[in-house]
Amino acid sequence: MNQFAMLHITDSEYCFPVSENEIVIRLRAAKNDLVKVWIIYESKYQIGISQQKKLMEKELSGTMFDYYAIRLNLTDTRLAYVFYVFDGKDYYYFSEDGATKEYDFKKGYYNFFQYPYINRADIADRVEWLTNAFFYQIFIDRFCIGDAYKDMDYINLRWGDIPNPKSFAGGDLKGILNKVDYIHKLGFNALYLTPIFKSISNHKYDIIDYFEIDRHFGTKEDLKKLVKTLHEKGMKIVLDAVFNHVSELNTMFADVVKKGRQSPYHDYFVIRGDYPTKDPLNYEVFASCDYMPKWNTSNKKVQDYLISIAKYYIEEFDIDGWRLDVSDEISHDFWRRFRKEIKSVKKDAAIIGENWHNASNYLKGDQYDSIMNYAFTKAALDYFAYDKMDAEAVSNKLNDILARNSDTVNDMMMNLLDSHDTDRFFSEVHKDKIKLKAALCLLYLFPGSPSVFYGTENYTEGGYDPDCRRCMDWDKASSKDNDIIPLLQKLSEIRNKCRFVFEGTRIYSSEDKKLLCMERHGEKSCAKLLINMTNEPGMDESIPVEARSFRLFVDGGSVI
Amino acid sequence: MNQFAMLHITDSEYCFPVSENEIVIRLRAAKNDLVKVWIIYESKYQIGISQQKKLMEKELSGTMFDYYAIRLNLTDTRLAYVFYVFDGKDYYYFSEDGATKEYDFKKGYYNFFQYPYINRADIADRVEWLTNAFFYQIFIDRFCIGDAYKDMDYINLRWGDIPNPKSFAGGDLKGILNKVDYIHKLGFNALYLTPIFKSISNHKYDIIDYFEIDRHFGTKEDLKKLVKTLHEKGMKIVLDAVFNHVSELNTMFADVVKKGRQSPYHDYFVIRGDYPTKDPLNYEVFASCDYMPKWNTSNKKVQDYLISIAKYYIEEFDIDGWRLDVSDEISHDFWRRFRKEIKSVKKDAAIIGENWHNASNYLKGDQYDSIMNYAFTKAALDYFAYDKMDAEAVSNKLNDILARNSDTVNDMMMNLLDSHDTDRFFSEVHKDKIKLKAALCLLYLFPGSPSVFYGTENYTEGGYDPDCRRCMDWDKASSKDNDIIPLLQKLSEIRNKCRFVFEGTRIYSSEDKKLLCMERHGEKSCAKLLINMTNEPGMDESIPVEARSFRLFVDGGSVI
Repeated sequence: MNQFAMLHITDSEYCFPVSENEIVIRLRAAKNDLVKVWIIYESKYQIGISQQKKLMEKELSGTMFDYYAIRLNLTDTRLAYVFYVFDGKDYYYFSEDGATKEYDFKKGYYNFFQYPYINRADIADRVEWLTNAFFYQIFIDRFCIGDAYKDMDYINLRWGDIPNPKSFAGGDLKGILNKVDYIHKLGFNALYLTPIFKSISNHKYDIIDYFEIDRHFGTKEDLKKLVKTLHEKGMKIVLDAVFNHVSELNTMFADVVKKGRQSPYHDYFVIRGDYPTKDPLNYEVFASCDYMPKWNTSNKKVQDYLISIAKYYIEEFDIDGWRLDVSDEISHDFWRRFRKEIKSVKKDAAIIGENWHNASNYLKGDQYDSIMNYAFTKAALDYFAYDKMDAEAVSNKLNDILARNSDTVNDMMMNLLDSHDTDRFFSEVHKDKIKLKAALCLLYLFPGSPSVFYGTENYTEGGYDPDCRRCMDWDKASSKDNDIIPLLQKLSEIRNKCRFVFEGTRIYSSEDKKLLCMERHGEKSCAKLLINMTNEPGMDESIPVEARSFRLFVDGGSVI
Repeated sequence: MNQFAMLHITDSEYCFPVSENEIVIRLRAAKNDLVKVWIIYESKYQIGISQQKKLMEKELSGTMFDYYAIRLNLTDTRLAYVFYVFDGKDYYYFSEDGATKEYDFKKGYYNFFQYPYINRADIADRVEWLTNAFFYQIFIDRFCIGDAYKDMDYINLRWGDIPNPKSFAGGDLKGILNKVDYIHKLGFNALYLTPIFKSISNHKYDIIDYFEIDRHFGTKEDLKKLVKTLHEKGMKIVLDAVFNHVSELNTMFADVVKKGRQSPYHDYFVIRGDYPTKDPLNYEVFASCDYMPKWNTSNKKVQDYLISIAKYYIEEFDIDGWRLDVSDEISHDFWRRFRKEIKSVKKDAAIIGENWHNASNYLKGDQYDSIMNYAFTKAALDYFAYDKMDAEAVSNKLNDILARNSDTVNDMMMNLLDSHDTDRFFSEVHKDKIKLKAALCLLYLFPGSPSVFYGTENYTEGGYDPDCRRCMDWDKASSKDNDIIPLLQKLSEIRNKCRFVFEGTRIYSSEDKKLLCMERHGEKSCAKLLINMTNEPGMDESIPVEARSFRLFVDGGSVI
């Protein structure tokens, strides 16, 4: 047995309650190292006297590690446990003190693993709609001009021309409203909009006033109407909360610029000195942008202010959640309070962080529900675009990504191929339509919720920001030749039918190593996706897949 | 390189800020596997362009793993980093994606490790007094009778007789007050008292009324006087917060027994049914004690109530902190709120959990400051008492224990050899005086604060509860032959002189494998402890230590 590979961390993605009497336990071991894995468990007050023993299943198989798992249904939730493993030759116990040939249950209270008690307050809640959401992400200025009567003087980009960082093309909320039917027909049931608040930029990540809708985008009435229209269709809407930083034109920061330490807002920011200065830069900012001072979210008054904004749009406009910009640079302390307050006004409001890295410490049920899953993006790029991973490598990697979080969180992850912050996926795969389509299948079948960036459905190209934020080509979107739209429709139909859950998900490569394979299980139906990105035919369990193609089956029947 | 052994977890004991611009980074690797370890780092917005590189030191060396560490002083705290290691043959990068021969810093934003930003609110504060506290733990009923005028009718144990679970010997707060000088002379600067609140038991862990001092123990005036006297001597006092459960005689539970679901307190407990019943037991309790119903600490009103108690004794009596009984069975959510509220009334109040197991998830600065370190207890027993570990094994184990938590937390750990919940250490080592003395040296030199159970200083014996709770033998304590008291005095003197910090601590076994060795560093002075529990002479760096003995040096000079 490879003892170095064995890992279990209590009260983490290796050990998490899923209800008041159910808990999932995982154990990491070296890949293909163990033959059998059991959990030996009992109430912590009983385990010195008697124990139960259950076989664990290999749930995930990553690059270097296998992950065994079991869901225990408990009468007494004060759980004590050790693992018992067989490597084909020897048996070992595995406890807080590592692997041993013997284990003294009578002294177990010193070194068994434990989940001491399932407290209701510590269970990560499942936002049901988020587990079956299909997000359509819109960069508003480039999507659709809906208000024909507004002052168009600010527009400096002819619709369809390539944007620069200062381009304004004129998209607005009314434009989105006009396209709700279109979006809905594509199978989407949720919108994620980049920021809509008062700002001088086209992207509006430098907000001047959070309580105003930017006049280029419309009015509060427009937002109300949009939310109402979406809800009537059973659709959800998530807005972008830019709470890490603000525009220097914000009145509070302007007050500090004017009055320095005399301003009541001096401690709302992180300023080393009486007055903020740009040269040398003596205050914290977003990235290196001196026009975006960072909020001091350790300050309770700042917390009060930002949370009042988040609650306002839920209470007054009935939005369904927030995507949190640069959320990893804000304190856990803030997000814990944020969650409590947001959930108190709308229990199933979605809280989705922008953490590009492993965010398990934000995803234990006390902070966010979900993140934008850029680890998935990277794996998809390495496989489809960069040839850095073959089917075997990417299937391992996808397993490792799933091992980062609990089942509950995996089912709520916001998975994406691209966004306003990356190159367009279609450009990354050098305009290979099969690759984009195969990747979309992977996106829709992967545990969590797919998020599709506007324009993906008409093969929109583009490099890094601002090129990825081109104007929507409505002619191409409505073209009869469009073959992405039927695919998206089919994929959401399949998911709606199957209603997958994380349990039983299997991602692997075929025996001939050519195919990336994924099996998902729902309450009634199952699906299987086979992707072959090699130049030769491949096969999985006697199902052939041609070179550079993919196949999708539901309940054994081929649907694509 | 043993890739399976490599472990780094961001935002954990492997990566924690210690001030607003300092962070400690650790990397785990297989023991003796690596030759050199560097960290390559930069602001996350810069690392694609330029990087800094620093050598890491081997800080701890455990049973199977080495732990490399570095303390970085940052200008920009938005830290991105990867490790770079040399195993004597090859060089590897180690990132979120594991070990690789190449690393693309330009795409690092997908998979570098990061601490995204040091927010003030997320830094674990150091309670300064707790890093140099010497606790004397008192089980009150058995310590000293001080109030000669009280009603003694409840006393059913003659002082010095062996107690049973229902024994009352008569110890009280006035008794402790009478002995403050004695305790202070022994070198202790802090008291930890088991519960003092109204209860029918001798241990008082089944509390009827938290707002009353038990009449057997004294009055609120007695507590006030005790705290005042201690504070005048520069001593601290920590009380026992039993917030997991309560006595069934508590008026709120009694109300539920009477009125069932009609009681406003029904949801203060966890009851499956309208009324609590004992047969079958339909409500949650402590262990299997039906007379100790468990509080529902997920209920905000219960939180309010318990926190009001904790604040009351700080605000009204000026106590210095709380030891939290059965704290691991209470929710993280409760402890997070508890900490905020307690620290708001007394910033340096100590919060010490009773978690017998790895508690790193409670020790990130948002819940407790410290725990009773029973992992240390177990290691000491395995080495001194049970012969389960030799010097090499125990030194490895002690390193592993230190690797569980941050430097900050290690300096505040409440270390102990025994308590009211274990057999007496002196009995565990079969009354071997040398072993007890050597273990006390280890206890005092180990990072954190020593906690000594009353009576240790006069070789009190005893098995498991209630036998470990025998009456204090005051004759033996004042005997001129007592050789433990001078040792305790010496040890606290040394610690006060040296003022150790975690950094630079070295625990290892001598080359001949006979000695357990520990080096500690303070601002001005250093200490070195050598323990030989074998039957042969041993030697470390030319310092000989006789069989079954120990030696202690300060700044190179032998003091014991």
